[in-house]
This record gives sequence, structure tokens and C-alpha cells, in this order.
Amino acid sequence: MIKVGIIGATGYAGNELVRLLLGHKEVKIEWLVSKSYAGQRYQDIYRNFFELIDMECQPEDLGRLAGTVDIIFTATPQGYLSGILDRDILDKCRIIDLSADYRIKDPAVYEKWYGIEHRSKELIAEAVYGLTEINRRDIAKCRLLANPGSYTTCSILTAYPLVKEGLIKPETLVINALSGVSGAGRGAKVNNLFCEVNESAKAYGVTTHRHTPEIEEQLSKAYGSDIRLTFTPHLVPMHRGILVTETADLKEGTGYEEIKAAYEKYYAAEKFIRLLDKDLCPETRFTEGSNYTDIGFKIDERTGRVIMMGALDNLVKGAAGQAVQNMNVMFGFKEEEGLNIIPMVP
Amino acid sequence: MIKVGIIGATGYAGNELVRLLLGHKEVKIEWLVSKSYAGQRYQDIYRNFFELIDMECQPEDLGRLAGTVDIIFTATPQGYLSGILDRDILDKCRIIDLSADYRIKDPAVYEKWYGIEHRSKELIAEAVYGLTEINRRDIAKCRLLANPGSYTTCSILTAYPLVKEGLIKPETLVINALSGVSGAGRGAKVNNLFCEVNESAKAYGVTTHRHTPEIEEQLSKAYGSDIRLTFTPHLVPMHRGILVTETADLKEGTGYEEIKAAYEKYYAAEKFIRLLDKDLCPETRFTEGSNYTDIGFKIDERTGRVIMMGALDNLVKGAAGQAVQNMNVMFGFKEEEGLNIIPMVP
Amino acid sequence: MIKVGIIGATGYAGNELVRLLLGHKEVKIEWLVSKSYAGQRYQDIYRNFFELIDMECQPEDLGRLAGTVDIIFTATPQGYLSGILDRDILDKCRIIDLSADYRIKDPAVYEKWYGIEHRSKELIAEAVYGLTEINRRDIAKCRLLANPGSYTTCSILTAYPLVKEGLIKPETLVINALSGVSGAGRGAKVNNLFCEVNESAKAYGVTTHRHTPEIEEQLSKAYGSDIRLTFTPHLVPMHRGILVTETADLKEGTGYEEIKAAYEKYYAAEKFIRLLDKDLCPETRFTEGSNYTDIGFKIDERTGRVIMMGALDNLVKGAAGQAVQNMNVMFGFKEEEGLNIIPMVP
Amino acid sequence: MIKVGIIGATGYAGNELVRLLLGHKEVKIEWLVSKSYAGQRYQDIYRNFFELIDMECQPEDLGRLAGTVDIIFTATPQGYLSGILDRDILDKCRIIDLSADYRIKDPAVYEKWYGIEHRSKELIAEAVYGLTEINRRDIAKCRLLANPGSYTTCSILTAYPLVKEGLIKPETLVINALSGVSGAGRGAKVNNLFCEVNESAKAYGVTTHRHTPEIEEQLSKAYGSDIRLTFTPHLVPMHRGILVTETADLKEGTGYEEIKAAYEKYYAAEKFIRLLDKDLCPETRFTEGSNYTDIGFKIDERTGRVIMMGALDNLVKGAAGQAVQNMNVMFGFKEEEGLNIIPMVP
Repeated sequence: MIKVGIIGATGYAGNELVRLLLGHKEVKIEWLVSKSYAGQRYQDIYRNFFELIDMECQPEDLGRLAGTVDIIFTATPQGYLSGILDRDILDKCRIIDLSADYRIKDPAVYEKWYGIEHRSKELIAEAVYGLTEINRRDIAKCRLLANPGSYTTCSILTAYPLVKEGLIKPETLVINALSGVSGAGRGAKVNNLFCEVNESAKAYGVTTHRHTPEIEEQLSKAYGSDIRLTFTPHLVPMHRGILVTETADLKEGTGYEEIKAAYEKYYAAEKFIRLLDKDLCPETRFTEGSNYTDIGFKIDERTGRVIMMGALDNLVKGAAGQAVQNMNVMFGFKEEEGLNIIPMVP
Repeated sequence: MIKVGIIGATGYAGNELVRLLLGHKEVKIEWLVSKSYAGQRYQDIYRNFFELIDMECQPEDLGRLAGTVDIIFTATPQGYLSGILDRDILDKCRIIDLSADYRIKDPAVYEKWYGIEHRSKELIAEAVYGLTEINRRDIAKCRLLANPGSYTTCSILTAYPLVKEGLIKPETLVINALSGVSGAGRGAKVNNLFCEVNESAKAYGVTTHRHTPEIEEQLSKAYGSDIRLTFTPHLVPMHRGILVTETADLKEGTGYEEIKAAYEKYYAAEKFIRLLDKDLCPETRFTEGSNYTDIGFKIDERTGRVIMMGALDNLVKGAAGQAVQNMNVMFGFKEEEGLNIIPMVP
Repeated sequence: MIKVGIIGATGYAGNELVRLLLGHKEVKIEWLVSKSYAGQRYQDIYRNFFELIDMECQPEDLGRLAGTVDIIFTATPQGYLSGILDRDILDKCRIIDLSADYRIKDPAVYEKWYGIEHRSKELIAEAVYGLTEINRRDIAKCRLLANPGSYTTCSILTAYPLVKEGLIKPETLVINALSGVSGAGRGAKVNNLFCEVNESAKAYGVTTHRHTPEIEEQLSKAYGSDIRLTFTPHLVPMHRGILVTETADLKEGTGYEEIKAAYEKYYAAEKFIRLLDKDLCPETRFTEGSNYTDIGFKIDERTGRVIMMGALDNLVKGAAGQAVQNMNVMFGFKEEEGLNIIPMVP
Repeated sequence: MIKVGIIGATGYAGNELVRLLLGHKEVKIEWLVSKSYAGQRYQDIYRNFFELIDMECQPEDLGRLAGTVDIIFTATPQGYLSGILDRDILDKCRIIDLSADYRIKDPAVYEKWYGIEHRSKELIAEAVYGLTEINRRDIAKCRLLANPGSYTTCSILTAYPLVKEGLIKPETLVINALSGVSGAGRGAKVNNLFCEVNESAKAYGVTTHRHTPEIEEQLSKAYGSDIRLTFTPHLVPMHRGILVTETADLKEGTGYEEIKAAYEKYYAAEKFIRLLDKDLCPETRFTEGSNYTDIGFKIDERTGRVIMMGALDNLVKGAAGQAVQNMNVMFGFKEEEGLNIIPMVP
């Protein structure tokens, strides 16, 4: 039984961490931090937890709190953790950061895309990028884990085997992604009001979305040389879910069998990645509430392209679920502990 | 470990039974019956179960199947079970019926409201009405359980303590209820298409909804004499959820403390009923995916009325969840086994 | 051609006024006032108006602006207009106020329910309550019009003929109402975020909702003596629409024909009230975007009650549409000018 | 005043035609044909039209009906019109076909993608493809108009100027499109039920969607030689709206100014195409209910690509609205007659 704390517990990712950790046998939630709701009972903010958790939100005080738990999850705005983290804290407890602060190895890239100065560059090298299925070995040993974003998890997992095996021309890769609204967070903004979002669809952050360099860095690493791609995110009116549709030119001689083999090579043994049967397209609803990523693909013979598709729940595999999966790896628990959740339909 | 079978496995309640039973430690799903999808893999119909269940839907054959399991859940249309059930089958296995066939004691009332002849009237007396919190003792001993409907579960639980304790004038009871669309089932009907249901609200079945006599029978039993009430259901554009708003004149001298005491008398020890703090109104989202019923109330001093409000997930506490809860009682399992599901928000 | 100005133009009611007035042949929009967006182009805030209106939002300055137009619509927070309005302004131009400031004749009632001091009590007597179908004659002559709320318009119109004709026992009247989210306004509040509102239903403002005294005052006036009723509003996940379900005991000897005759007596000649055929229940979608109120009813023989049901679009008949209808009456235009909008389905 | 008839009046496009034509000053609806609802009152099927249209649906009998009107709209399944149309009928009245039967010039392509034999190939040559902004001159003279699909209208209009002017490499064109559910029609299919569609997103028809050859044919014609592209449609949970995101490599030396100039060359004078300001992305909600297509674009300097984006209402500009626009051109009416509808938000 380990002790955990959550900073940023009242955002949607924080709330999802609480849901998952309450069902985890090896874990006790020790405290919840919320800047906006300090002093309020957690169950009054999220009444799904009524009678299920009896705890007040605490104000933030990382230095003091670090000594009281084995691991801290930070579900905080970009720049928060990098602004206060240091080696002393990491000596006291492990950290899984759900923000982007330690995901990108080159701080100049981070600073350019996020428009924020990175204030603890010296810790970046030590951070491990927490795409569990790809980096499991490094994750097991790390004390500072950079948990990937939802768009990135889905985008990378969907393309990874084909990029890694050199089956597509990476310079032709075009990623279109759809996201549910919970990805936009719980901030009180006009843009996220029901009447602004419901019954509409739009692209946003076109050519400038911050998840772009994160996707590029990981796929470049897989490929062995630099990849530049176009990533276009869209907002669609649903609570949860990321759906990616990735188009790329196939290399000569690549057909269904080669692609299928590549996916199976990397994912056949993975519990949380489900390779759909031939010709099936993933749907976000079939992953809802669960830690699964569903992947399918289709070859466009007429154009020589492959269309790769992936779906996941942005708050689970795209945030809190993968964070718990990584914690399990870091502490040697069973990897699916706390994550045996069957997707809920409808 | 008991063996269970499900008839009507491909409706929404059947699908929810599968979700809950896959997470139940004392149970093995032995077979799934579906008239419409016989011969097809269950995971191809509900792809949330992809890689999680490997079973083909079977055609219906109750006589043969009854001998192969300890309990059968029937999530079937009205009139199906009463048309084929007999004592021989009940000698072989217990049955939890999610249809209305055995909920109403007087077959004439059933036949009038449902417009169907009841073809096994001799079994009605033996059936136990499965509102777990009210009938737990009888449920423990029964072999034919009539699992309540979602509107009825929510309507009855919300009013029960005040009716039982005589705090309201029952002849003034007016029940308005809102339901999500999954309550309408998975039949291919124009009325349930996305474009017919979304972005709209309506009352339906006004004065004629079949859950009316079921609510009246149970509340009459609690009150000790006959109650006639007005029940008006509404359809609102969401997947899951029942919300009831019940208005009634208070008897002289009844105030906040008396009402609160009545609710606590019956529900304080109930895990799956959550009595909200003063002045809070239940919201269906805070019960989503779980077996909870959330109840709150407010006194209208100006009119001498009480407004009682209840919320639950129609597919869980309103159908499959309560069915599992009843199964747990019938077999002496821990009552919450398989039902420790935290409501998922958002 | 008259000149109009709108104060509070960037809320949802203001936006709807602009939509309707742009299609009105007798009207020219002269200016738009928005405290929050002063200096910004209106078409940049509401891009549905892209290329359709070329106007910057102005800061508020009622004294100066009043002289420049024939009529001002105020779609402003409660207390705003009553805080600045005086006879000088009313001498310069007519005003249609979409807030509640002049709806209630007794300022003590207003102050109690709204918790705001009324700062121009001397003008209340002169204000006309703008339920067009009921008060058309007075509206035609007025210069200060109190435009009714959406809940109230729907609640009153649905019950009015039966109350007026004495067909129901008014002390038994229970009103349940469902509202779409646009009724909650465009303020940046967590409560109105997509992820807080979607896929859920709740009652709110139970026993305390501010529209209660407004409904009571108008129905009392119709009845000829004081009525106290219970009004319970609910929020459901859709953009637009109010649906009311009103239950009341019938007076002895009242049947289908009497009720039908009462509705026809008051509404048969009304273009914007549609009395549905026997046994039909109104649905909000069939009024969407239009100025119609659809009304149906059903008798519950078992309990001696009538269930009256009404539906309308809260932003049109419940706000901007009725405001335009009232303007038409005030200026002697054709009553439906600018309002010949067919409900849009789906 | 011309007389019009509609075959397929009870589908969503048919319903939208009725909405638009009722507001058209030069038109009288003479009859409505519906195979499924023959003999029923139209206002009973679509109660938005309650009291607004008094007409029974008729059974289909094209030969007889053709002589009674000036123009017929066919909003019918693929293969219907081509199976019964002949020159005699076209001598009697003009036809606007909202199905795909006459959109594709090469019947072999039609038969391959649609899997249907084309039974009036001799009429294909005479049919004019009704993308109004592109083919206005030919439309004015035609008697058989092939009205484009919603995906195709949006996909073609968004890319047309850049393809026509040779600013992009057409072999790199990748089109991702999102559609609301009304595009799937009003058939009673499980797949289109609220509980199957809501709260989910998916790609479908990947590499095989029938709108692909239609888009290719028109863009090839614009480019002057054959284009093969990848078109991937997605279903998202909203009633109306098509959003396309099109990615292509820019030709050398093409920058913002060239692209902007190309769009303005073709669309600056077009009432129903709105070129958004720099860096703005279209949102489907801002076109809802209207005949507008909103277009924006962004250059991805890092990859040398352009992202073109278009949005429209699939039932208006993507179906009924463009059909009315084409009718206006064919009969010499003002092109916007009946289409001066302001998009409705929210």
C-alpha cells in the first residue's frame, strides 16, 4: 500500500485520477490539492463522490507535501511544475506529471510552442516520457514521469508500428484528430459553455497546436530521423474521446499483411491496445471510461495510402488511466491494477 | 462460483448485465441468448467488449438452457417470459425477470395496462418484487424475482419513507419523471433516431404509462391503503438517467426534521441510497454508471408541499444493477459485489 | 421604418433579437450596446452574422442613446434598467425590457424574490406586462413594456384559459418545467460548461425560482383572486426550449369538451399559439427557432386531474420573439412581421 | 408563381425543402410524395409544420404528376430516379434530383461506386452538375439538374480556387470531413439511434465512400487533368453540419497572398460563400439553418502545406438550400429568394 497525493485534483483529469485510484488496491489517497477549491470538501465539488471520499481540498505546498507520500500526480497548468520542482523534492517522492512540462527534451522547442520559460531545464533529461507500451522499461526505473497528452497518446500509438518499421513515408503523414470537450478543461470560459460547443464542430489550433512537437519528437525517435507532420485537432460535441485519422503514403510493396504484422509485432501482447478486425473503424464510445486504445486501418489502393485510425478515452488512456498504468509499472504492481474497467455503452 | 445465462443479451439492459457480471467475482456467464443476433459474436455487436468476451449469441430455448445454469436473467419484451415460464423451469434454476411480467400482483391490472394476456398467472403469487432496499428479506428466499423498472425504482424509493410514515397526503402525489433515451431500448424505430430525440424534450404516455400501476401498487402497500397518483414521464436527450420530481401536500405538522428522520430511518444504512445534504438537488450525472440512487427534498412553505427528488442510472439501479444486487441477495453474496462502481463524471 | 437599439446585445437573447430584427422590414438596427464587448465588431463575437451586420458594440450610455432611436430593447441583468431608467428617457423613446425589473407590480415581492432593491418604483405602474396574447390592448398603448420570461410565458399561456374559465382548482396547480441551457445565459460559469450540463438532468431553484411570483401574479389576475402554486424548473441538455407540464385537479363536471372550448375561446384566433390535436403532446423541437407556443392536454380520469402541456423556444417566444411581437403591436405593424419563421427540424 | 412537387418529402432533405419553399415568394407547393407515409397528413409527420401546411402525402406516380407542376425535386434513394426517368417526363417539367443518379458523367464509375445499374444512361449527358457558384451559366439553361451531395459541396467549394489556379499539388490532397447525423437520413436503423451515435465519433466508409468520385470528377475538371484523392468521412454527434479539413502541399512560391487572391477571385462576389478573416477557422454552428458556406485556411510553414477548411449546413447548402438556389437560377428568380436565412446560434 503506497500513499499518493494529487495536485490539481479538481480538474477533469484530477477527478478521473480520484475515480481510478479509489478502485486501486495498492493505493491510498493521502491528500488532494486544489488552488481554486482549497478548504472545500471534495465530494461537494464532484458529487459523484458523495459518501465515497471524505477529504477537504488542501492549498498547494509541494515542499511540505512531498514528504508525506510515495508519489504525487500533478494535473496542473503548463509551467506550474517546472516552476517549483527541484531535486530535493524528487528525493522525497516520485512524480507523475500530467502537464507538458517534461515531455519535450529540447527546452527551446518547449518554450517556443508553449510560450513559457522552462524554469527547471536541468530536470528534463531525467524525465521519462510515459507512453507505457513504448517506454515500459525506462518507466520502471524513473522517478519523474512525463505523462503524455491525449492527442499525443492516440496519435503516436496509432502510427508507431508503421513508422518504426518504415512502412510509410513519414514526410507525407497528415494527422486529423477529434476531441471531446473534457480535453479543454474545467476553466470557466465562454468558449466551453454548452451553448457554444454543442451542435457544432470546428478545427482549432491549426498548425500551432502544442501537441505537434510532442508527436513529432516521439515518432522521429521511432523512425530514427526527423519527421515533420501536419496535426489538425478538432473539437466535437461529446464529453470524452479522442479519434485520430492519420493518412500517409505507403512505401513501395507494403500491403495489408505487412501492416498487420507491424501492428501485431508491437501490440499483440498489449492488454490496453486492441487491434480491431480487418476493415473495422474504431469508435470512441467503445473505449469510454476504459484504458483501451482501439486501432484499425485501411489501405487506399487508388492512392497508395494507408488510413490509420485510433480511438481512446482522453481522460483515461489519454490522461489519468495512463498515469495509473505508469505508476503501476514504476512500483512493480500488476500493470492493469485499478484499470480493469470495461467500456460503458451507451 | 455460479453459472448465469442472459436472455435478451443484446438490448441495452442485457449489455449492461454483461458489463456488470464480467466484473463480478462469484459469477461465470455461461451463455447469452439473442433472438435478433443468434449466431453472431457478442463482441461484434457491442464492440466495447472486444477481446473481453468470446461468445456467440444463441437462439432462445429456455427449457434446455434452464438446466445449464444457476440463474437466468431475462431482459426481454413484456409477455415473453410469462408466455413460456412454468414450474419445471423454476425447479431447475432461479430467474430474475427484468420485464414487467411478474411485477403486478393482479393479472387484470397487468392485462389492462399492458394489453397482453398473462399466460402464467399461477406463478405471479410466487414472484417477489425486487426493490432490494424494501423487500430484501423476501428476495433472499425467492426463485422468481420481478425486477422493477427504472421509473418505478426511482419513483418508489424517492417517496417510500414519507408514504410509509404517513407524512404526506398520498392523494395529492404528483410524479414527474425525466428519462434518458436508453430506456426506450435498442429497437430500430424512427422515434428513437438521434435526429428525432436530440435537442428536444417531450412528455409521453401521459396518464397511460405502464409504470403507473406498479408505482401505485408498491406505494399503496407501504401506505396500507390504495393510492391513485399522476405519473408523467418525459424524454430528454441523454443516454442514461432517471430524474423524478414528486410533489405532495404535507400532513399538518410535518417539517424538515420529520422528513429527514423518515428518510434516515429507511435509508441511512443503505449503501446504494445516498441522502443528499440539505437543499441539494440530485443530478443524474452523479449516478452515471453506478448503482446509486441519490435523493433530496425541499419544503415549499408557501404551499405546504414537499418536493421530493430522486436520480439514478436507469440501466444500473433501474435495471441491470438492481438485478445483480438482487442476485447477490438471493445467493448470499455480499450485496455490493460487482457493483462497486464509482459514478463517472463527466 | 423605425430605429431600434439593443442594450445587452451580446447575450443569447440579444443575439436572437439581432437575428429577428435583421429580417424585419420596418426596422433598422441603429446601435448595439455591450458592456463586455464594447469596441468589438458584433460579427466577430457572433460569427453567424459574418458579412451580415457591420457594427461595433458600443459602451452603455442610456441617456444619450435614448434620443437616437424610437425603441430600445434591454436584454440586461436584473436591476440594471430599474437602476437608471427615468421619465426623461421614456419621453424620448419606448422601451421593451427583457429583464424582470418591471414585470411584478408589487416592488416588495420583486425585492424579496430577487434580493435587489428596486430603484425606480414610480415607473412600475406604467409598465405593461407583455404577454401579447393576453394584454394586446394595453401593449398597443404602452411606452414601457415588461417582456415576460421564458418559463413564465410558457407556464401562463398553458394554464391561462383553464384558470380564467374556472375549470381547475387553482390551489392544486403544480408546474414542472424543463429548460434548455441557453436560458442560463452566456456568462462564463463552471455550471454552464458543456461537461457539467451535457448528459444530465436536474431540478434547481426548487421553491425559490424567481419566475414563481410572476406566474402567480398573472394567473391570480386571470382567476380573480390569489393563487399560490408550486413551480419546479429543471435543466436538460439542449440549446433551446421550454417544456411545461402542469397538473391540477379539475372542477366537478369538467371534461374534454369544456377544456377544449376554453383553449379555443382564447387561442383559436392566435397565430402564435397552436392547439395540438387530441392526445398529442408538444415537443420543444417542433417550435425551434420560431415564435410558436404549442399546447396540448390530457385528462387523467383516474385521479380527476388534467395535465396541461406547453412548449416554446425560450429565445424566441420566451424572449426576443415575443419582444418583437410586442414591438409590432406597439407600433401598429403587422403582428407577425419579422416572425414568420418556420420551426426547423432536425 | 411556379408550381413545384417534391418526391421523397418525408426524409430530412424533403422536410428542409418544404421549410424553404414555404418561405419562397415565387413558388407554390403543389404536392408532396412519400412512399412510406402516403395518405398521411404532412403536418402529422413533421409537427413543426402544424397549421402551416395542409396537405396529404401522395403515392408516387411520376408520369402523371410530371404534368401538373413546373419543377419536381426528387429527394429519393440512389437508383430511384434513374430507374423511371425518361425524355417524356423531362418534356413536361424540369427536375432537380438530390440523389446521386446524374452527378457522375461516366456511368461505369457510378455503377462501380454505387453498386447499382444505371438505367437511363442516355440522360446523363444532359444533366448539369448543380454546384451553383461554379456552374451557374449551365444551370440557367438546364432541365435536369444533379444537385450535389453535402460532403461534395463542401469539399469541392473549399478546394476549388486553389486547384483551379494550380496553387497546390493535387496528388497530395487529403480530405477529412465531419458530418452531423441528419446526413444519414431518417431510415429506422439501429446505427442511427440516439444511443448509438451520441457521445461518440468514428470514421466510416473509409476509402469507399461514394462521394469520392464526385469530388474527384469536379476537381479534375477544374484542374484540367485527373486527380485522385483520399476522402475520409466521419460521423459526429450533432444534427446538422459538414466540416471539411483539406490538407495539400503548396506549389513552390505560393503564400498567403496568392491563396487569398485565388479565393477572392472566385468567391468575393458570391453571396453564399463567406471567406473568413485571416486565421479564423469555420465552425458549423455559424452556418446552421442557412445557405452559407464558410471557408478559411491556414498555411503550415513547417511542412509547406495549406490547410483549407469549409463548413456548411448539410441540409441547406448541402441539399435543399442549394436545390432552391439552383431552381432560382433555372427560373430566373433572384438567386437568394427563399434563402435569406440568418444562421441561428445557439
